[in-house]
Amino acid sequence: MSTDTVLAALRAALGDAGVLTDPERTGAYLVDMRKYLTGKSPAILRPTSTEEVVKAVEIVGAAGLGLVPQGGNTSYCGGATPDESGRQFVVSLERMAKIRSVDPLGFTLSLDAGVILADAQKAADDAGLTLPMSLGSQGSARIGGLLGTNAGGLSVLRYGMMRDLLLGIEAVLPDGSVLRDMRRLRKNNTGYDVKQCFVGAEGTLGIVTGAVLKLIPQASRRATAWLPLAAAAPLAEMLALMRRETADLISSFEFITTTALGLVAGSDSGLHAGEGGTLLIELSSSSDRIPLDDVLLGAVEQLAERGWIEDGLLASNERQRAEMWRMRETIPEGELKAGGSIKHDISVPISSVDAFLVRGAEIVAAYDATFRLSVYGHVGDGNLHYNVLVPPGEERLAFSKRIETELAPQLYDLAAEMDGAFSAEHGVGRLKRGLLERYGDPVRRQTMRRIKTAFDPGNVMNAGAVVDPLG
Amino acid sequence: MSTDTVLAALRAALGDAGVLTDPERTGAYLVDMRKYLTGKSPAILRPTSTEEVVKAVEIVGAAGLGLVPQGGNTSYCGGATPDESGRQFVVSLERMAKIRSVDPLGFTLSLDAGVILADAQKAADDAGLTLPMSLGSQGSARIGGLLGTNAGGLSVLRYGMMRDLLLGIEAVLPDGSVLRDMRRLRKNNTGYDVKQCFVGAEGTLGIVTGAVLKLIPQASRRATAWLPLAAAAPLAEMLALMRRETADLISSFEFITTTALGLVAGSDSGLHAGEGGTLLIELSSSSDRIPLDDVLLGAVEQLAERGWIEDGLLASNERQRAEMWRMRETIPEGELKAGGSIKHDISVPISSVDAFLVRGAEIVAAYDATFRLSVYGHVGDGNLHYNVLVPPGEERLAFSKRIETELAPQLYDLAAEMDGAFSAEHGVGRLKRGLLERYGDPVRRQTMRRIKTAFDPGNVMNAGAVVDPLG
Repeated sequence: MSTDTVLAALRAALGDAGVLTDPERTGAYLVDMRKYLTGKSPAILRPTSTEEVVKAVEIVGAAGLGLVPQGGNTSYCGGATPDESGRQFVVSLERMAKIRSVDPLGFTLSLDAGVILADAQKAADDAGLTLPMSLGSQGSARIGGLLGTNAGGLSVLRYGMMRDLLLGIEAVLPDGSVLRDMRRLRKNNTGYDVKQCFVGAEGTLGIVTGAVLKLIPQASRRATAWLPLAAAAPLAEMLALMRRETADLISSFEFITTTALGLVAGSDSGLHAGEGGTLLIELSSSSDRIPLDDVLLGAVEQLAERGWIEDGLLASNERQRAEMWRMRETIPEGELKAGGSIKHDISVPISSVDAFLVRGAEIVAAYDATFRLSVYGHVGDGNLHYNVLVPPGEERLAFSKRIETELAPQLYDLAAEMDGAFSAEHGVGRLKRGLLERYGDPVRRQTMRRIKTAFDPGNVMNAGAVVDPLG
Repeated sequence: MSTDTVLAALRAALGDAGVLTDPERTGAYLVDMRKYLTGKSPAILRPTSTEEVVKAVEIVGAAGLGLVPQGGNTSYCGGATPDESGRQFVVSLERMAKIRSVDPLGFTLSLDAGVILADAQKAADDAGLTLPMSLGSQGSARIGGLLGTNAGGLSVLRYGMMRDLLLGIEAVLPDGSVLRDMRRLRKNNTGYDVKQCFVGAEGTLGIVTGAVLKLIPQASRRATAWLPLAAAAPLAEMLALMRRETADLISSFEFITTTALGLVAGSDSGLHAGEGGTLLIELSSSSDRIPLDDVLLGAVEQLAERGWIEDGLLASNERQRAEMWRMRETIPEGELKAGGSIKHDISVPISSVDAFLVRGAEIVAAYDATFRLSVYGHVGDGNLHYNVLVPPGEERLAFSKRIETELAPQLYDLAAEMDGAFSAEHGVGRLKRGLLERYGDPVRRQTMRRIKTAFDPGNVMNAGAVVDPLG
């Protein structure tokens, strides 16, 4: 079948607005967010319904071509960018962005996979509830992509990752069949929980078109603290204490190094780091009967008694709280302004976080003592964004290549030695396949390939990302 | 290969104590807990290590025979009982019962799959932490079986099911390879999360030999209430209110009907049901700074103001609390004493629980107005144990057959109409395969068979349970 014939069939199925070929319009879909990869595609497909997705899958599959599902195109590892063959159609879910329903008594939200996270949050808010998932790119990241990468974000400590929020799914499989399992059940043990396969599969097993997510009661109170740390403050011990003393009402436990904080504009707010960096801690409660400030204060006093913090500021109003969070959330922006950074999204067991920080810094200093590290992250989850700033005058892509071949393997080796992982929440995509081959247990990788083969023997879905089918 | 040759090879690999053939000793392994099924097996295998499990899988697989993994043999659906062919070896994990390690700072517990739940709870307690999984059979159920059925229990509302507690896994696959993924990571997005496949697979994809589970801070306080309900008290609305007013510190929200409560001995404790049954509610906190009794009392007052409860008793000491829980936990025993019950483990969306109770009772009354229902369960999860008591004079197995063919389908149809499930936490096993065929979405079932084929094309593992491979 010629490309023209395929495009004509797709236009007949999706309409002209559903098939973009004008280079002026397709360009943005073909480059990853960090501009590491540029792919080619015969067209960008923009279905408006599950049925149109089915048609697209059938037409493209019959032509022996491939598909790359794309949400908000915010992948950090090239998981939503087609290859350079020109044989993969990008399928953008951006026109499937309807909230299907909210069940306020059942605490669930049913929605299209193309809904932007911020819009999903708003739909929950409007029903007097909360979708407990928030992250830097929430204004552009879409639910399907968040599920495909099992996204984490700022409150994993308390509410978990996307997998933990998922109750139901709708997905179009590579053969065009539709898995319809949009159930709102908390418990359903009627055979294998097939939907789990799609979480973290980065669009390689099918196209997620809908989901049912858990909601929680809306927080009526928050207590937020900014805690400049003493040198070598033991983060894992501090977290254990905070979990216990707050009855797990703690939803965020974010660590920021002094260097990372220094990249952020507007430190006139008085928010400074201590010798050991700083912690941003938040508790939240939907009940006014819990004296949240007292709970936080009591716990912070215990940290102070142990000499782990130099100081401490409790946000006394929403403006102050927002300022604390702005400091944390604008670090990536600060890195960009400083010339960019090479990111490592590392996780280790929580009890190894402190050792990783010490030994990681030694490794980097031994490689080049002039390097500056921007380290911050969700220590509550054992997840560190361990970023090396691009030195002044160096070209980012060339520097990236060098770090990835010379320094990063040492950091990943350290994580592996600690039973950690080279990707905590960003995924594998196209850019980290080599790491999966290097660090992935062979049986686990083989099992992944078996699963890929079971769903997609023809390698129609996002071929080139994560793993290949067998054979 | 003759059975004798296979047994000799197994004895050489596992030792004599690892291969039971004496009918005096094998009998207990061959009958399910409720005595619905009796299977045959050439021997009961009792490996003491992962390496011995590998040898057993290799020897049995090479002989073209099968394996049925068994933990505490507490399945309600015949998931751990071999068929009658005499070609399936039971593999009991009972001699693999070591606690491997506890990471108190990382809040994790690593253990063999044969550890009994109560022993796992104790290991967590000894480290000053808690494994938040408890259920009636905790003195005999083992971790591997709990994972295989994705067990739920009494605190799913707050802490989730076994899937939600699982961080790492070790499993022997049908080809004898070992998936070693005993990592303690909260976040690990390095490709497909293969371990999810084993949760709820009921031993049909491999033999789970080890696991890493999440722990939580130990509760230092609990607040427990017994709330006799007004007629038609709206359970879903009550739950939503309780979740909000307690900041989700509520860990149990258990509903008991008057009939179910009447089966329990010792109502001299003054614990009675109201016209609408009763609720048993518990909050827990690891922090002494949270006034848990006040929080509970405040929430209960709101229930009272709305006229939803007739009365209310807050446990004022541990003895009273234990008595409340005894009432809830001895219902299954009470059912047995009353002549037994036919169990339906139904889940519906939480917002449909109230409607299910009304319409389910209508269906049962229309079938036979003399039937007595023992209904109780984890309403916080939308999960009802909807049990029909065996009428006096009726033979349990014959009655069971009649109910399963004549009445149960109407109840399952009702659940299905409400987007519910015929098995919330008990699984499919051998006994509910017909229900999976009736109610399972065809694409979902086909996908399950693809997964089974990917892991176990030769149908070595627990053949006859859940699904068959393709072809």
